[in-house]
Amino acid sequence: MAVQKPSIPKGTRDFSPSEMVRREYIFSNIRDVFRLFGFQPLETPSMENLTTLTGKYGDEGDQLIFKILNSGNYLDGVDQSLMSDAKKLAPKIAEKALRYDLTVPFARYVVMNQHAITFPFKRYQIQPVWRADRPQKGRYREFYQCDADIIGSTSLLNEVELVQIFDEVFTRLNLPAVIKINNRKILAAIAEVIGMKDNFIAFTVAIDKLDKIGTDGVIKELAEKGFSEDSLSNVRPLLSFNGTTDEKLDLISRLIGSNVTGAKGLEELRFIFDRSKKQKKCRLELDITLARGLNYYTGTIFEVKADAGTLTSSICGGGRYDDLTGIFGLPNISGVGISFGADRIYDVLQELDLFPAEISSSTRILFVNFGEAEQEHCFNLVSLLRENGIPSELFPDAGAKMKKQMSYADAKKIPFVALIGSDEMEKNLITLKNMSSGEQQSITYEGLLTLLNK
Amino acid sequence: MAVQKPSIPKGTRDFSPSEMVRREYIFSNIRDVFRLFGFQPLETPSMENLTTLTGKYGDEGDQLIFKILNSGNYLDGVDQSLMSDAKKLAPKIAEKALRYDLTVPFARYVVMNQHAITFPFKRYQIQPVWRADRPQKGRYREFYQCDADIIGSTSLLNEVELVQIFDEVFTRLNLPAVIKINNRKILAAIAEVIGMKDNFIAFTVAIDKLDKIGTDGVIKELAEKGFSEDSLSNVRPLLSFNGTTDEKLDLISRLIGSNVTGAKGLEELRFIFDRSKKQKKCRLELDITLARGLNYYTGTIFEVKADAGTLTSSICGGGRYDDLTGIFGLPNISGVGISFGADRIYDVLQELDLFPAEISSSTRILFVNFGEAEQEHCFNLVSLLRENGIPSELFPDAGAKMKKQMSYADAKKIPFVALIGSDEMEKNLITLKNMSSGEQQSITYEGLLTLLNK
Repeated sequence: MAVQKPSIPKGTRDFSPSEMVRREYIFSNIRDVFRLFGFQPLETPSMENLTTLTGKYGDEGDQLIFKILNSGNYLDGVDQSLMSDAKKLAPKIAEKALRYDLTVPFARYVVMNQHAITFPFKRYQIQPVWRADRPQKGRYREFYQCDADIIGSTSLLNEVELVQIFDEVFTRLNLPAVIKINNRKILAAIAEVIGMKDNFIAFTVAIDKLDKIGTDGVIKELAEKGFSEDSLSNVRPLLSFNGTTDEKLDLISRLIGSNVTGAKGLEELRFIFDRSKKQKKCRLELDITLARGLNYYTGTIFEVKADAGTLTSSICGGGRYDDLTGIFGLPNISGVGISFGADRIYDVLQELDLFPAEISSSTRILFVNFGEAEQEHCFNLVSLLRENGIPSELFPDAGAKMKKQMSYADAKKIPFVALIGSDEMEKNLITLKNMSSGEQQSITYEGLLTLLNK
Repeated sequence: MAVQKPSIPKGTRDFSPSEMVRREYIFSNIRDVFRLFGFQPLETPSMENLTTLTGKYGDEGDQLIFKILNSGNYLDGVDQSLMSDAKKLAPKIAEKALRYDLTVPFARYVVMNQHAITFPFKRYQIQPVWRADRPQKGRYREFYQCDADIIGSTSLLNEVELVQIFDEVFTRLNLPAVIKINNRKILAAIAEVIGMKDNFIAFTVAIDKLDKIGTDGVIKELAEKGFSEDSLSNVRPLLSFNGTTDEKLDLISRLIGSNVTGAKGLEELRFIFDRSKKQKKCRLELDITLARGLNYYTGTIFEVKADAGTLTSSICGGGRYDDLTGIFGLPNISGVGISFGADRIYDVLQELDLFPAEISSSTRILFVNFGEAEQEHCFNLVSLLRENGIPSELFPDAGAKMKKQMSYADAKKIPFVALIGSDEMEKNLITLKNMSSGEQQSITYEGLLTLLNK
């Protein structure tokens, strides 16, 4: 076969060992906090039936679903008239698809297993998702989501705990962050009060773009969608309001008046703020303009951004949904969940140099391999260290060049190198080199074990 | 939208929390041992370019590759004459595919990053792979592989270490296993000696089926492939030979005579057996009939089976390959690797009841939620316990039925339940129920913390 110059699909990435340990640092911190709060792990298949996913993410989302070609003769039985219509043909020849997020598969799982699950069900899920988005800086076609959801409980304590989870994770990652919070009931009430109840979706879609297009842009978009000048005069102060949480709550209260839905939203927000007085590494901020694009949110909505560095995109999101499982036949089960975007968190930690130095290597010591005789001797020592739980290596190729062996230790950031030649073998000692200080010492095996166990 | 009855694609699985913790038990043991031996993590994308995968797994393998439909108008520019030929059309409309194993993507990675990698490169990779196989018991369309490879070293110490890794993993999992080992050079020599050098592939494919079709079946298949009665008389004793490792080595030695390749294979086997005298939980067995289907193996080959229970399929495999990266333009880089089949190991551990009981839940204590006032009190205690690293939960819904709350603790196998009513609040005490013994005691927060920290 001819030699191929290898490449990978655009928008996808390999993760080298040094990237992997940093990613694992993020995942394990998130996972540990999820467990600390009583969430249990779940995994769903990478593939779902296409019908499970279609129609859940809007028209634009549907376009971004990766479809999997049926196996075997996938053209068999396909109507010839469809053969020139890519859009109509696709669901005939590709009946499976890669999951687009973790939320819809979770809803599907809950419905399929509703009789086996004890509610409230607190699950976390850390898996890749795929989107056929146009690749660009910070946007990939395969990326990990880290979700935690509580389903089957309407208690607002869940929201309070999710705020604590955000704070705990970013405390552990040593990353200052701002947790923005709002409530879709308030947005619905505002839309209603300004006489635009039927344009609620257009309303949320427009204000969701505030960061990108600014106050004027939002007002312009709303005007185009048919919002009157009268209604916009109520929206305008909302978009540019700065003040304390209490002042914001007052503004909302004035705006929504006696609207019942709005009052409920306001009460929910107050409950959460009352019980979230202290954060360790995060700021909790009421953001009246936070809307979140996803239409399944019905109550509290969350968004988290780094509070340092230059990267302004959100690193987490979430919210409460009152009927996510309805579409699969299990109506009126309320849930609330959050999602950490590991890739963006990675970029932020990288920019701010917040990855701890000590996570870079797991191997603690490399034994240089001077030749056949020394190799036998060192092999036994390495085995002993491993029996004691210390990650260790013997360079495998007997008598390889010293420079090559030391470069190997350097490249893997191995902190200690053991040099055992005939002299050391005779005296049953180890010449140990500290790779960061460059110092060498002569040490017994027992001394080495003590040193490495520290 | 109409209600959908949800399902998942055949051959795929959801993993519930109780399955997940057991799977994680397997993965973390394997991962820990890989790290102990100095292997570093790597991940590659789920999708590869179809051309990267095609032709690497034989014709049958190619059929089993899941292809991903191109995004957008995938029919654009496709030659109309292909529109009725599923096989020829596929690579035009589906240019990406899901990875079929971890080995080919690894080879692709090594070639793409050859200048950044310090060899020998010891990497492990734990990720799912996908095959459009016909689903059946124990065979899935999505399953995890756990691979460790050393590439860029010809030292047989690597093989010795891989044997140690098998033994260490199965010791940690408390599963007795037999590690079968052979060498493709010996098989090649035998084929050569019996005058069937050109039929080497047919030879290995046939004896690889020994477990399934028996000695007579193998002989019959070889006869059909053109092996003479004369040559088969040499093969027969090999297939049914029982004896010690030394007796097997003698038999091979006699059979291969002065064949140079065979002598090399024999020397390699002897080296590995000489340095692998003691195993903890495994038996190391020379299996002259072990062939391994994959053609890229050129030296040592491994296979591991459980040495208890009724499940006879292999749970690990592996071997040495002298030119895996050649196809991607980097020839003559020798490597050796092994792969753990996590799904099959799961089935064996399940059958033999070898999963430890204590891995089932991470939450240590549930606080019953008697109502609004108690909730506030308990919420603070739960937060304190979490600050101390103890996974804890407060039932979120205030005043939910006692039965519901206790069932929740039961279902999650939470070992302790805290009952705090007005009486306990007044005295600042906790009534603690041990869920396995049923015993209750009155305890202070400090006492509880000590108890849970044990």
